[in-house]
Amino acid sequence: MTPILRTSVRAGSYHDSVVLMRLQQALANLPGVLDAGVVMATPANREILGASGLIGDGAEAAGPGDLLIAVRAESDGAAAEALARVDALLSIRAGGGGEGGYRPRSLDGALRALPEARWAQVSVPGRFAAEVAHEALDRGRNVFLYSDNVTLEDEVALKGKARSRGLFVLGPDCGTAMIGGAGLGFANRVRRGPVGIVAASGTGLQMVASRLHALGSGVSQAIGTGGRDLSVEVGGISALQALDLLARDPETKVIVLLAKPPAPAVAAKLLSAAREAGKPVVVNFLGKNPPLWRLGNVRFAVSLAEAADLAAAAGSLEPAEEVEKESGESHPTGFFRGLFAGGTLAYEIQLGLQIAFDPIWSNAPIGTSRTLDDPARGSGPGHAILDLGADEFTVGRLHPMIDPDLRLRRLRAEAADPSVGLILLDVVLGDGSHADPAGALAPEIERAISGAREAGRTGRVLEIAVLVVGTDEDPQGMEEQIETLRRAGARIATTVEELVGIAWERLGPLPDAPGLPVPLEAVAAPLAAINVGVETFCDSLLAQGVSALQVDWRPPAGGDERLAGILRRMKARSTE
Amino acid sequence: MTPILRTSVRAGSYHDSVVLMRLQQALANLPGVLDAGVVMATPANREILGASGLIGDGAEAAGPGDLLIAVRAESDGAAAEALARVDALLSIRAGGGGEGGYRPRSLDGALRALPEARWAQVSVPGRFAAEVAHEALDRGRNVFLYSDNVTLEDEVALKGKARSRGLFVLGPDCGTAMIGGAGLGFANRVRRGPVGIVAASGTGLQMVASRLHALGSGVSQAIGTGGRDLSVEVGGISALQALDLLARDPETKVIVLLAKPPAPAVAAKLLSAAREAGKPVVVNFLGKNPPLWRLGNVRFAVSLAEAADLAAAAGSLEPAEEVEKESGESHPTGFFRGLFAGGTLAYEIQLGLQIAFDPIWSNAPIGTSRTLDDPARGSGPGHAILDLGADEFTVGRLHPMIDPDLRLRRLRAEAADPSVGLILLDVVLGDGSHADPAGALAPEIERAISGAREAGRTGRVLEIAVLVVGTDEDPQGMEEQIETLRRAGARIATTVEELVGIAWERLGPLPDAPGLPVPLEAVAAPLAAINVGVETFCDSLLAQGVSALQVDWRPPAGGDERLAGILRRMKARSTE
Repeated sequence: MTPILRTSVRAGSYHDSVVLMRLQQALANLPGVLDAGVVMATPANREILGASGLIGDGAEAAGPGDLLIAVRAESDGAAAEALARVDALLSIRAGGGGEGGYRPRSLDGALRALPEARWAQVSVPGRFAAEVAHEALDRGRNVFLYSDNVTLEDEVALKGKARSRGLFVLGPDCGTAMIGGAGLGFANRVRRGPVGIVAASGTGLQMVASRLHALGSGVSQAIGTGGRDLSVEVGGISALQALDLLARDPETKVIVLLAKPPAPAVAAKLLSAAREAGKPVVVNFLGKNPPLWRLGNVRFAVSLAEAADLAAAAGSLEPAEEVEKESGESHPTGFFRGLFAGGTLAYEIQLGLQIAFDPIWSNAPIGTSRTLDDPARGSGPGHAILDLGADEFTVGRLHPMIDPDLRLRRLRAEAADPSVGLILLDVVLGDGSHADPAGALAPEIERAISGAREAGRTGRVLEIAVLVVGTDEDPQGMEEQIETLRRAGARIATTVEELVGIAWERLGPLPDAPGLPVPLEAVAAPLAAINVGVETFCDSLLAQGVSALQVDWRPPAGGDERLAGILRRMKARSTE
Repeated sequence: MTPILRTSVRAGSYHDSVVLMRLQQALANLPGVLDAGVVMATPANREILGASGLIGDGAEAAGPGDLLIAVRAESDGAAAEALARVDALLSIRAGGGGEGGYRPRSLDGALRALPEARWAQVSVPGRFAAEVAHEALDRGRNVFLYSDNVTLEDEVALKGKARSRGLFVLGPDCGTAMIGGAGLGFANRVRRGPVGIVAASGTGLQMVASRLHALGSGVSQAIGTGGRDLSVEVGGISALQALDLLARDPETKVIVLLAKPPAPAVAAKLLSAAREAGKPVVVNFLGKNPPLWRLGNVRFAVSLAEAADLAAAAGSLEPAEEVEKESGESHPTGFFRGLFAGGTLAYEIQLGLQIAFDPIWSNAPIGTSRTLDDPARGSGPGHAILDLGADEFTVGRLHPMIDPDLRLRRLRAEAADPSVGLILLDVVLGDGSHADPAGALAPEIERAISGAREAGRTGRVLEIAVLVVGTDEDPQGMEEQIETLRRAGARIATTVEELVGIAWERLGPLPDAPGLPVPLEAVAAPLAAINVGVETFCDSLLAQGVSALQVDWRPPAGGDERLAGILRRMKARSTE
């Protein structure tokens, strides 16, 4: 007996994904049916069906907007019988959404019935989602936008509008949030507690929240932003709104910030906001943390699990350091230029800075640093970290740890460049090194600082910071070397972390964001929400005791895009 | 008064770098001289001179092998006077190397005078260094090879020879080591103690050693390897020798391993060796640590400073877990395939694995993972981690956290692929998710494992490991879900760290290295060493109380490469 494959295509047909999932399960369970597939006929979905032997002749005509139904059965009769039942199965009410209750056909209808709903949870297919989200914003509601496949342009427009009105748009592609003690989208049952979470990372948020619960801690608010929020184009609008809100929220004692590595310009803003939060902030930029433990009130966690561990232990963290709001005038400016004798030190400082500064140029680039084409000639037009002990500088010349000449010449050149605001140096003591490296550098450091001050009618301030590596038993004497450098005007660090901290002062305060802050009422308990889209999400809200209402949403023209286009043009004409 | 620039070129002239540095300093200090430069006329060095206004007409003829002397002076007379004194200044004995003592002209002569010297410290110019190092190896001596600009081919040949004879070649471009309580190259004065260091990173080693000293701890042996040791070509020969020696050394209680991110194949060997060391090992792969705290006895430090902190606290670390030496037969093999519903979890597991496994294919690549062109069709020919919740899989289809169908089909396909040895899954519980994800997966997991066992006449074992994210209050019941998965035969993890640990079992034991282990006597105190090259390094050894002897080394034919070539050919002919 050869299995029979039968296919049916329904052009431009829209059905809720839950309905399609249940249809497929129902077909597969019919007598004589071996397997069934029910998908929108996108290229990926067709390949998936094909891998299961569910693509046959009839499927060729189906396009991405068409519904493709395939049945493999023991006999032609069983296959035909199954396909004949599709309409009946589709007409069975999917359930969910407060079964049997009132189901308004529009957002306005839902808001009339549940006016206290401050949130709309939107999970309609991506191509329709922006319109629904705009509608909710226009009615003064925050949006949890689960839908994916929403364009970047739509995201930028939605978030700009939301910010100007003091509202959130979490998403698109936001999988989870915990607002006012209830979960939106996918969310674990977690006790309330002192940890506020901001996450451009759905299951990352769920992992951290679950572990906090297991550790006996809990969550105040957990705010997903959608992964694209931290792109240059969106600029972290939602994440910055969320950090601002959690900084003001009295129930949040510690903040966790999770994200894939953001664009450096966005990371710089996030870190400035974190620094100004006035409470401990635990940061995990997946796979691109700077190589350091902490900067003031900001701690870096190596993993999701450690982020939870650190946040749960927040009570034992030192209280956040007071961060003085710097005035714009005193904020140091200008590029940094590193002139290092130690290659590894030059690497680690690059890794420490590149999360927030970009581009960084180097003759020994690591991570995202860029290659400086001609390091012997100069340091390029921006931030730069040079390894003066690299091979190209040591042909017929002693290493800069012994011979200071090359570095002194470069130091002079950098100090004369008015675009430079900070020069980073290292001094490595010990046997084999120069007998008095601080003494060799000090006069040039002093000259550089005073020279910049004299030339500095425009307000230029040149800082010089030196990383000193050595011990109290080294022949040069560590304390004396440090004292010599200090007297010349240099700031001193003894770890790369400290040196990074000095450079990070240049991030400056966060400029005031345009728009309105989101009021704390937006996240107050109890949550009430309107659900537009996947009906099981409404069931989940109701199961948590949330006041929720499902909108019986249908796409324009039943999902037929050609017809929807005609309707749009007609509507436009009628309002001309 | 216009400054006068005068230049002198000495073709094919060799002088020790210390001599050149002192000549430059002496010229610059002559009356009427404003600045001076003395360099081998490489392109980089010419540009550096040019930036200081020290390149004039006479310099054009000078090539990389020529000595270029430039003087800028107040008058033509002063410039001429300075250049006229070059010969006299060059003839002044540079000092160093045990001034006034016996200075043998050859390594053999030195070894006759100091036969207990187990080490030769070599810092002659790169193009001559390999020959000197071979000479030392052939005389049964370990080599500390400070010289840079040595070819990769020479490094491979030297280290291969050394390994076959139970000797070290540390370097080329090795800046530092601490052997038998004394520093080679650049080294800080650090008390002896329980921490052994292996570092493909010179100033990284110095930073960690200095900080250990500051923390009250100390160093047993510190073994630099040169940065290129961890390349695919060299394969980590020196680092593996060093790990092996420190594992055997009774004075070493904890090991620190520092390196720029090694090639994954080399990292896998290093981590296998670390796991088998039988003592705590603190690892810092600059900027590419896996996102986890520890794997058995291996701890990952985020920074150089933290590496020192963790090593100093090693006494408070749990004692190393006993690692059973697995037999080759029982070692699990085959590719791993991850089928994830959680995007962030798919990212973190990639970051955890890619340090040691390469390539890893993914539809959602991060770090060094590669893009899978057609994820809907299959997982490619190797290791793969898929995010089944990515946009391309969710058009007109519910997220895999709700609809298990897609994942079940993929699981079946991966289990049927005989090249697959481990399947990684996640189960994310909570509101919004499937009501019983473990129940949906369990039958397929059971079928996959038993199916592979039945087909496994060739010894194939298929493992399935599941990361479960959730809380005890989630509607699905975390314990029940875990129990269901366990009964089906799956291994359970609740953090990505644990899941990485399961995958890392596949690294297997380290194969026996060819060659001989380096005997502990090689690093025993007191150190005695022959110095060939930079004389101040010999001074440093003597200042530390080391028995050291400077070889009065000269390049063949005085550094004239044309003449040296003729001599080589004559020598070759005479031995024909």
